[in-house]
Amino acid sequence: MTTSRDFSFTQIGVIRTPFDSKFAVPRQPSLAPSTRGVIVLDEGYSDPNYVLGLERCSHIWLSFVFHLVGASSKPTVRPPRLGGNERVGVFATRSTHRPNPLGLSVVRLDRVEHKARTELHVSGVDLVNGTPILDIKPYAPYVDSVNHAEYALADNQPDRLQVTWSQAASNSFESIKPSLVLIDKVAVEQILAQDPRPSYHSDDSRVYGVSLEGVEFKFRVTNNEVIIQTVETPC
Amino acid sequence: MTTSRDFSFTQIGVIRTPFDSKFAVPRQPSLAPSTRGVIVLDEGYSDPNYVLGLERCSHIWLSFVFHLVGASSKPTVRPPRLGGNERVGVFATRSTHRPNPLGLSVVRLDRVEHKARTELHVSGVDLVNGTPILDIKPYAPYVDSVNHAEYALADNQPDRLQVTWSQAASNSFESIKPSLVLIDKVAVEQILAQDPRPSYHSDDSRVYGVSLEGVEFKFRVTNNEVIIQTVETPC
Repeated sequence: MTTSRDFSFTQIGVIRTPFDSKFAVPRQPSLAPSTRGVIVLDEGYSDPNYVLGLERCSHIWLSFVFHLVGASSKPTVRPPRLGGNERVGVFATRSTHRPNPLGLSVVRLDRVEHKARTELHVSGVDLVNGTPILDIKPYAPYVDSVNHAEYALADNQPDRLQVTWSQAASNSFESIKPSLVLIDKVAVEQILAQDPRPSYHSDDSRVYGVSLEGVEFKFRVTNNEVIIQTVETPC
Repeated sequence: MTTSRDFSFTQIGVIRTPFDSKFAVPRQPSLAPSTRGVIVLDEGYSDPNYVLGLERCSHIWLSFVFHLVGASSKPTVRPPRLGGNERVGVFATRSTHRPNPLGLSVVRLDRVEHKARTELHVSGVDLVNGTPILDIKPYAPYVDSVNHAEYALADNQPDRLQVTWSQAASNSFESIKPSLVLIDKVAVEQILAQDPRPSYHSDDSRVYGVSLEGVEFKFRVTNNEVIIQTVETPC
């Protein structure tokens, strides 16, 4: 006889990323390698000993909570990459809608800083700002890199769109650039190149907006080209 | 102000493996590729839709609980591979002793069977028998396989010992082999080749015992050679 078993875990820290909402978060971590994040460990885990030797890793695994999504009771999802029409079991996808909203991402570790709290500066992030982190493990290539693995549902990088800036958007971005720490021009282009529009929407005339590190980018998508129209900061 | 945050997760199933105790569990999943396991999904997750399309994956990630270990409050561990003398931060190791006892393993998916419960037959396992599984995700090579990653603490496969069988052990194993489903002769050799003795023990004359799929293997280690002396099943 099997009885249901629950397990409780405590957040060890929170990640700061430019993704102010789920919209525009890359579907996988390696797709926007220039996007930076900072994991700020909670007080109870900021003893420098917790990360002793971590600088000997180039990449780390983050186990985290899809805290904006919560637990899902649906057995299947419709992955955007399959056109949104085909149903696939949740355990056959990396969807955020899962019985246990546990996320898993490999990110590059750029540096460790010991301030009041321990900070891990990383890049190539695909987590929403404020995501609770449960665990950090070194990426061990000799076990984690399975070159011969096959995943027929998503066996290569998704297509990317061309990204161009209007003169106004480019000028605005240049003026606010010095105040940004998590994104630069390349990161913005990598993020928008993935076509962050909701599935089933392909209205060429519609203007979409995405907030990255508190900056609002307004864009249109025409003929597989993303045109950034305006870049605005809150007053 | 940061407040501590707890998250609760529910087991989706349990894995059956030959490892009747923590002793002799491979330190990483790929080290004993012939060792088989069966993930039996709980009743609430045995709707076949949950794994719809999973057969299109060759490898899967298992997120699981180190249920025999529990939460650790120590910031550092002494990895056996560093000789047991050097302290390293828990977040810089794959140690089982962590603030959140969350495990992560990639295993090969051999087949899916739909019986009263859904069964995922896997190989290359490094989990103790009865380990609670929290999540299953497809291994996506284009994001998970980071070939250029570096992990200076353990950048290659550990050394392996030669394994030989006494005539008595070999005969006994041949006679019980038909009743075994999770291990075969090669799997036993791969498991023992990793020198499963506790660290700091290198007494050539001492006989060690390990239980695999309910079978007790008694062995000695002399001059980097494992000699399996007897193989016994409980009456």
